[in-house]
Amino acid sequence: MVNYSDILAAYSKVTKFKNSTLLQYSRTLSRMTGNQIYLKPENLQLTGSFKLGGAINVMMSLTEKQREKGVVTCSAGNWAQAVAYASRLFNIRSVIVMAENASRTKINATKGYGAEVVVYGRNSNDVVSKAMAISNSEGLTYLSPFEDDALIAGHGTIGLEILKEKPDTEVVFCPVGGGAFISGVALAIKEKSPEIKIIGVEPENANAMWLSLKQNSIVEKEHVDTIADGLALKKPGKKPFGLVQKYVDEIVLVTEDEIKKALVFLLERAKLLVEPSGAVTVAAIIANKINIKNKEVVAILSGGNIDLDKLVNFLKEEITSIKN
Amino acid sequence: MVNYSDILAAYSKVTKFKNSTLLQYSRTLSRMTGNQIYLKPENLQLTGSFKLGGAINVMMSLTEKQREKGVVTCSAGNWAQAVAYASRLFNIRSVIVMAENASRTKINATKGYGAEVVVYGRNSNDVVSKAMAISNSEGLTYLSPFEDDALIAGHGTIGLEILKEKPDTEVVFCPVGGGAFISGVALAIKEKSPEIKIIGVEPENANAMWLSLKQNSIVEKEHVDTIADGLALKKPGKKPFGLVQKYVDEIVLVTEDEIKKALVFLLERAKLLVEPSGAVTVAAIIANKINIKNKEVVAILSGGNIDLDKLVNFLKEEITSIKN
Repeated sequence: MVNYSDILAAYSKVTKFKNSTLLQYSRTLSRMTGNQIYLKPENLQLTGSFKLGGAINVMMSLTEKQREKGVVTCSAGNWAQAVAYASRLFNIRSVIVMAENASRTKINATKGYGAEVVVYGRNSNDVVSKAMAISNSEGLTYLSPFEDDALIAGHGTIGLEILKEKPDTEVVFCPVGGGAFISGVALAIKEKSPEIKIIGVEPENANAMWLSLKQNSIVEKEHVDTIADGLALKKPGKKPFGLVQKYVDEIVLVTEDEIKKALVFLLERAKLLVEPSGAVTVAAIIANKINIKNKEVVAILSGGNIDLDKLVNFLKEEITSIKN
Repeated sequence: MVNYSDILAAYSKVTKFKNSTLLQYSRTLSRMTGNQIYLKPENLQLTGSFKLGGAINVMMSLTEKQREKGVVTCSAGNWAQAVAYASRLFNIRSVIVMAENASRTKINATKGYGAEVVVYGRNSNDVVSKAMAISNSEGLTYLSPFEDDALIAGHGTIGLEILKEKPDTEVVFCPVGGGAFISGVALAIKEKSPEIKIIGVEPENANAMWLSLKQNSIVEKEHVDTIADGLALKKPGKKPFGLVQKYVDEIVLVTEDEIKKALVFLLERAKLLVEPSGAVTVAAIIANKINIKNKEVVAILSGGNIDLDKLVNFLKEEITSIKN
C-alpha cells in the first residue's frame, strides 16, 4: 500500500527530471469567484501533462533486470508520451499499444519521444490484451496506468509541490479519471495538512468514480462519452478507489459545455492551452459547484495535449456563442 | 540616462507585484535546432505581457503630486492593460486613449483593469495628440511608451531575471518594436555579462530599427503592415535607439509566415498562447536566422494577447498547410 513516505521518496528522485510548474495566480478567476485562485499548470510539464512524474517514478522503481528487458503499456494519450519520454531518460526499451482511432498527433509525439508504437484494436480491452500478450511473449514488464503504487506515489509529488509553494492552500481541485492522480495528490496533502479540502472533478458523462463513491463499491459504466478523453474511463482503478474513499472530500460533476467554456477561458485569459480533461477543475470553479468564498484555491490543470482541429472547433463554437 | 543600478533598483521594487515567469525548457525546439532552448514566457505575466514590470516601475517613480492627479497614455494593446493594472495597484487614476479600430477585447480588458478608456482617432498621431491634450487640460502626467528611463529600467528587470535563473545563458532573443524592451534587457545583461549575445528580432514588414542601425540614424518608415501588431512601429524611440546601438549584437528579420508558424508551434508543442509579436523570437530560432549550435539560448515570448478570431484563422491556415 502506498503511503506518505513513498511520495517523499518519489519527490526526491523525480523532481530534477521535470520542469517547474509554478502556480499562476489568476486575477480574473479570483475576481469572478470571490476567492484567490491559483492554477497549477501541468500542461507546461515536459510531454504536456502531469503523467511524467508518475512515469519516471515507475521507471526508477524497476529492477535492473526489468530495465534491461524493457516495458510495455497501452494508452491513447498522455500516459503514452510520459512513458516514452521517461523510458528514454533511462535507456529503457518501451513499447506502447495505441488503438487504431488514436490521434495521429499523439502517435507521432509518442514515436518522437523514442517509443515503439504498436497500433492495434479499437477499444480499451483490445489494447490491454495486446499489451499483455506482448509482455508475455517478449518478457517486457507491463505498466498499469492505474494500479501501481510507484505511479500513485509519483503523481503524489504534485501534491507536495503545491504544499511547498503555497502552504496556506485551503482547497485543491483535481481532475478524476481512473483516480490514480487524485489518489496521489490527496494522500500527499491530507497526510500533512488534513484541513485542506480535496475536490475531485469528473465529467457528468464519465462519472464512474462519483457513482462508485455513492454506492460504496466500484461501478462500471457501460458507456462513457466526453470531450475530456483523458477522463473517459468506464470504472475507477481499485487502489485509487480506496484512496479516494479515504482522502477525497467530494467529487463534483461538470457538463461538456462547462468544460469547453473553461478551456476557452484558460486560453484567452490565462494564455494556457489546456486539454478538456485539464480544464474540468476551472469548469467546476467557474460554475461554482461547491460554494466557497474568500478561500485560497488551487486548480490543477492536468495537461495540454489536444489536436489543433479540435481546438479550432471549440474556439469557433465559443466565438459564435459570444456573438449571439 | 538609464543605467544598471536603475535596473537593480527597479528589480527590488517591482518583483513582488508580478507573477514569476520561470524559463520553460523546450525539448522539441532544442532537438530541432541543436541547441538548448529555453522560453521566457512573459505571456504568463499578469495582464498577459512583459509590459507590466515597466508600467509598475513608472508608477513607483511618480511624485506624490503626480500620483494624486493621475496619468494618461495611449496604446492599442499591451501597454494599455499594463498601465491600467499598475495604476490600480497604487490607486492612481489612469486614462487610456485607444484608437477607434482597437480590438473590442483589448478595450474591455483595459476597462476591466480599472482604467478610463477614451476611444478616439484612427492612427498613432491621433491618439498621441488626444492623450497630450488630456494631459494638458486635466493635469494628468503623460506616460510615453518608449522615451522613459523608468520604463526601460522596469523592462530591464526581465534581463536580470534571466541572468539569475540561468547564468550560463549564451544567447538571448528579444522582440523589437519601439525598442524600449530590448534596450532594458540588453543593458541589464551586457553590463553584467558582456559575453552573452543579444539578438533582436523584427518583422521584415516593420523593420525600422534594423534600417536605423544600418544607416546609423533613426529611420521613419512610411508604412508598416504586420500581424505582429505590438511591433508595428514606424520608427524606434530615441533613447532605445542609442541603447540598442550600444548593447545589441544583431537584429534579424522574420517573415509573416515564419511568425504564424512559430505561433502555432508554441501553442501546439509548448502549450502557450503567444501573440504574433511574442512569437518572433521562436520564428527566428526555427528559421535559423543566426547560425548557432550547442548554445544555451533564451527566447523571450513577450506577450499573449491575441483575439480568438485571429487565432482561429492562423490555426486554420496552419492545419490546411499541414494537410496539403
